[in-house]
Amino acid sequence: MKRHFDADLEDLRGRLLRMGGLCEEMIHAAVKLVVDRDEGLLSPVQEWESQVNRLHLEIDDVCLKLIALHQPAAGDLRLIAAALKINSDLERVGDQAVNIAETGVFLCREPRVKLGDIPRMVEVAAGMLKDALDSFARGDVELAREVIRRDDEEDRLKSQTFNELVHMMQRDSSSIARGMDAILIARNLERIADHATNIAEDVVFMVLGKDIRHPAEQARGEPRPSGA
Amino acid sequence: MKRHFDADLEDLRGRLLRMGGLCEEMIHAAVKLVVDRDEGLLSPVQEWESQVNRLHLEIDDVCLKLIALHQPAAGDLRLIAAALKINSDLERVGDQAVNIAETGVFLCREPRVKLGDIPRMVEVAAGMLKDALDSFARGDVELAREVIRRDDEEDRLKSQTFNELVHMMQRDSSSIARGMDAILIARNLERIADHATNIAEDVVFMVLGKDIRHPAEQARGEPRPSGA
Repeated sequence: MKRHFDADLEDLRGRLLRMGGLCEEMIHAAVKLVVDRDEGLLSPVQEWESQVNRLHLEIDDVCLKLIALHQPAAGDLRLIAAALKINSDLERVGDQAVNIAETGVFLCREPRVKLGDIPRMVEVAAGMLKDALDSFARGDVELAREVIRRDDEEDRLKSQTFNELVHMMQRDSSSIARGMDAILIARNLERIADHATNIAEDVVFMVLGKDIRHPAEQARGEPRPSGA
Repeated sequence: MKRHFDADLEDLRGRLLRMGGLCEEMIHAAVKLVVDRDEGLLSPVQEWESQVNRLHLEIDDVCLKLIALHQPAAGDLRLIAAALKINSDLERVGDQAVNIAETGVFLCREPRVKLGDIPRMVEVAAGMLKDALDSFARGDVELAREVIRRDDEEDRLKSQTFNELVHMMQRDSSSIARGMDAILIARNLERIADHATNIAEDVVFMVLGKDIRHPAEQARGEPRPSGA
């Protein structure tokens, strides 16, 4: 029974990593659509989203079945709880990538727009997601903490892009609609970095049994027991 | 033991509803800050966020302990799984409300901006959240389905507001920065409605054991068993 359970947990991990891999592909294709002005990339992004959504349903289902059948405790339960959350974050990453691709299709039909630091934002966000997934695969807390630290860089790039684009819109009012679209893409990328940060926080909890979210409230409230 | 477990589940439900109530207060105060140009409302919103964050940590902790101690199955397990997800959606609703309030503080220092359908968007989003929480409290599937249907209205209002504000910005370039801010607030409200929709979907799963998310993938993939 235990060996069977271990195989099931391994399978769960595999599904999540497959889902994460699809999300990475989606981000890169969505941004390539924007940068290369290649509308043809919308359809693969949508096809991957459909696969991501199917995995989203399956993984939730697998997690509940594992809890009901095996009554896991301690580390195994924390892995399943982390899987439930990572599942939900990855599904939202997929949504953000679809948003980028759909906005990109509008942008393809407009004169080329200034993208500010968007290419750099993609590198940071996609890198954070990749490393968050690696930290999950390997139970690597140090890598997870490193991901969390990188989120500030993404926020800084977003503000910079935001300001640059608003200035462009103020100088040239014909650029307002496409400037808005570029700003929304920057927001999507910021969100993807937020989801990667959530995943990294879940990895720290999974490995150490220590909840590092909301540090201000942690200090003031009761410390969260690591037992569960 | 069973009676003790029932009391624990009741306590869990109570905490979630308290957290939801705080989120509702936050939304109303954040939007009042914008409409009445009253910066003084930022500080209560931040104080409530801190309470919401504390509940966020506590509720996750309670859920894992209930699973580890009571090894719930069927309906009880679905309630706890729903609680974990609703907890995460409510925390994000709190974040959105804080974003609205912070953007509002910028807007208070600018000439008054056109708000388009934002007041109506608040009514819809806050109403959806309230009803989603009621459907959770009462296990009311019909109300939950009704919440899900209302999300289209919110999306329609957002697009309308978006277009109206872009036109304003094109007519008067001095309004670009504040127009952007109003658009971001409309996006925050749209997200709140999305979170209310997620909560309603979780209620349907909790009560019926039926996952109604991603209908396209449900039809194509294997039906999700209601057992778990």
